[in-house]
Amino acid sequence: MNEMRWSYKTGGIPDELFHRGKVPMTKAEVRAVTLAKARLNDRHLIWDIGAGTGSITVEAALVSAKGTVYAVEKEAEGIALIKENSELFGVDNIAVIQGTAPEALFSLPAPDRVFIGGSGGNFRAIMDLVFQKLVRGGRIVINAVVLETFIEAVEIMQEYGFTDVDITQVSIAKTVDLGRIHMFKSHNPVFVISGEKP
Amino acid sequence: MNEMRWSYKTGGIPDELFHRGKVPMTKAEVRAVTLAKARLNDRHLIWDIGAGTGSITVEAALVSAKGTVYAVEKEAEGIALIKENSELFGVDNIAVIQGTAPEALFSLPAPDRVFIGGSGGNFRAIMDLVFQKLVRGGRIVINAVVLETFIEAVEIMQEYGFTDVDITQVSIAKTVDLGRIHMFKSHNPVFVISGEKP
Amino acid sequence: MNEMRWSYKTGGIPDELFHRGKVPMTKAEVRAVTLAKARLNDRHLIWDIGAGTGSITVEAALVSAKGTVYAVEKEAEGIALIKENSELFGVDNIAVIQGTAPEALFSLPAPDRVFIGGSGGNFRAIMDLVFQKLVRGGRIVINAVVLETFIEAVEIMQEYGFTDVDITQVSIAKTVDLGRIHMFKSHNPVFVISGEKP
Amino acid sequence: MNEMRWSYKTGGIPDELFHRGKVPMTKAEVRAVTLAKARLNDRHLIWDIGAGTGSITVEAALVSAKGTVYAVEKEAEGIALIKENSELFGVDNIAVIQGTAPEALFSLPAPDRVFIGGSGGNFRAIMDLVFQKLVRGGRIVINAVVLETFIEAVEIMQEYGFTDVDITQVSIAKTVDLGRIHMFKSHNPVFVISGEKP
Repeated sequence: MNEMRWSYKTGGIPDELFHRGKVPMTKAEVRAVTLAKARLNDRHLIWDIGAGTGSITVEAALVSAKGTVYAVEKEAEGIALIKENSELFGVDNIAVIQGTAPEALFSLPAPDRVFIGGSGGNFRAIMDLVFQKLVRGGRIVINAVVLETFIEAVEIMQEYGFTDVDITQVSIAKTVDLGRIHMFKSHNPVFVISGEKP
Repeated sequence: MNEMRWSYKTGGIPDELFHRGKVPMTKAEVRAVTLAKARLNDRHLIWDIGAGTGSITVEAALVSAKGTVYAVEKEAEGIALIKENSELFGVDNIAVIQGTAPEALFSLPAPDRVFIGGSGGNFRAIMDLVFQKLVRGGRIVINAVVLETFIEAVEIMQEYGFTDVDITQVSIAKTVDLGRIHMFKSHNPVFVISGEKP
Repeated sequence: MNEMRWSYKTGGIPDELFHRGKVPMTKAEVRAVTLAKARLNDRHLIWDIGAGTGSITVEAALVSAKGTVYAVEKEAEGIALIKENSELFGVDNIAVIQGTAPEALFSLPAPDRVFIGGSGGNFRAIMDLVFQKLVRGGRIVINAVVLETFIEAVEIMQEYGFTDVDITQVSIAKTVDLGRIHMFKSHNPVFVISGEKP
Repeated sequence: MNEMRWSYKTGGIPDELFHRGKVPMTKAEVRAVTLAKARLNDRHLIWDIGAGTGSITVEAALVSAKGTVYAVEKEAEGIALIKENSELFGVDNIAVIQGTAPEALFSLPAPDRVFIGGSGGNFRAIMDLVFQKLVRGGRIVINAVVLETFIEAVEIMQEYGFTDVDITQVSIAKTVDLGRIHMFKSHNPVFVISGEKP
């Protein structure tokens, strides 16, 4: 445990500070935007569905320091990484749940905020449950990198009458140091879709 | 004064919560990334050069609540907006300085963090002074929307030996609600260039 | 008539060479990609639905010099511009049809290639007719700037069993000369969706 | 030899139709924009410097069918690919030159059009020679994927007084078919810088 791994009050923690194995990770810049769209306070009860490496889980737990983040992930590799990263960043307000959504969500307490990073193909069923359990005024933030998820997210947000719906595509290009030269490299674009339950 | 205008711990405050007149404003998503690159703690002494509407000033002041943000801006319209926005968000750890950089910076205390949003054509002179005054380990974050500033920023960062240099282009596209349909609209791309003084 | 307005064999004609009034125009770079996706020969029968200023109509007519382009547009302003631009570029293998799609398409001969730039809200009905009339092996290229059109296009391409489906988002940023400086300006992103009728 | 590999009059030939080994290739969409910026006629004398796989060489040769494309490339692997791709597309108006620019360019006839895709670190020396040899009214198109090349290109274009200078960043994202789902993948951004010799 190292409480000083991130001693700042701002997020968007550099990617290389996380352990990640070969699990896809939400990159620093998109993470910064994703957290911003969630509008966290320090006591929120948060679900992170398809938590992957736990990079969003950790950042949410750092901000919502008196709240709790339920990190739901089906893959054992992800579960191990979420635990590792929680320890690395010294956050203990995280509950790690191995399981498939939506089933794994049934017994969780009602969330103030929900992140959806992965859906394993059950997107609509997950959204049904999330919409039902989310507190009024609660917010959901979906990071879609898959066309079908993007389309479903947009449609469901409208169908369910989410308010303050925001659809933002974040495209990041960074220079990579190759010694004598720097190359521009793109990250894959992420659609960040957020809204509030009325 | 309205302390509740933004009651969250995360930034990337929606654009429409700021007063902005016709002054160009760093948009919410780019602001979130910009603050992330600065890595603020709650006691930093911060310069915001070319503060414009004060949107970054305000967000930095909210995070660095026990620190101070020196907002430097040459235009009277900007100065008025920075004051208005400070009041709107109930932050009082802001010092607003009307003047042209680098001259307006001479008498300011040494900063831990520096944001440069505008340079009025004195970019190199500003960077000279900033590099000299910045504390060791201090960080600078430049938002370039102008080609010449981008090029100078990249060159100066290398010349002065900044470390941990990061060059990130942020391209945001959002849907705009036109009633029956939503159009994709792009924001202009921003190059966010950051580094640390060794 | 000025046959020399564009004396080159490549397209992506600069925007300022077209008359455009206040009608939205497909910009040069997106036009170049759009024409590429269509894969035109010099004898194609082409429909350009929602032809707007006629910029794609003109480019298609220049390439398919022994073919014909049917430019369908409902607005009188667009119709006038298409005619003007046809004259400016000295192309006479264009048939301009004022009317609303799909009705305006009923009497047209079966196309080898179809461009859809605008649908006036009848997208599915237009696609039904286009799919029916398009020759086997014919290609369709849709330029979507509207979220709903993008989603419908993607869904219909799959539903109808188009092959060689390509979904490309084109994001263009250009510097604009402001005298002493150049600013980066983004064009709005365009989704270019193309496919072949099996 | 297969003269029918590309039977269309439009370019932006799909990437998979080229042989490419592990050599970086200008992708179809950027190629379409690059050719557009060059404004080719059918009799141009063209240099393609850093020709790589020869994808631009081939497309230029198809358009400028009565002209000649001099493809300059230092790597043997590239040279082999350029020859292979020329054969595949049935173009014989290509001269393949293995060598390092600018030296390899000394004995070539004055070009009407110049593409620069790679510079092997001799960018300024190449530009010196190109500017000298390019015919009046001739055009140059530089594809920069490296920060340093981008900066040098912008500076040299201004220094030498090129006219009609255009700086366009092309960012392409495409969906990739993963069976049940489609993922959005970005290509790395390319700065396409073009201008005319006065």
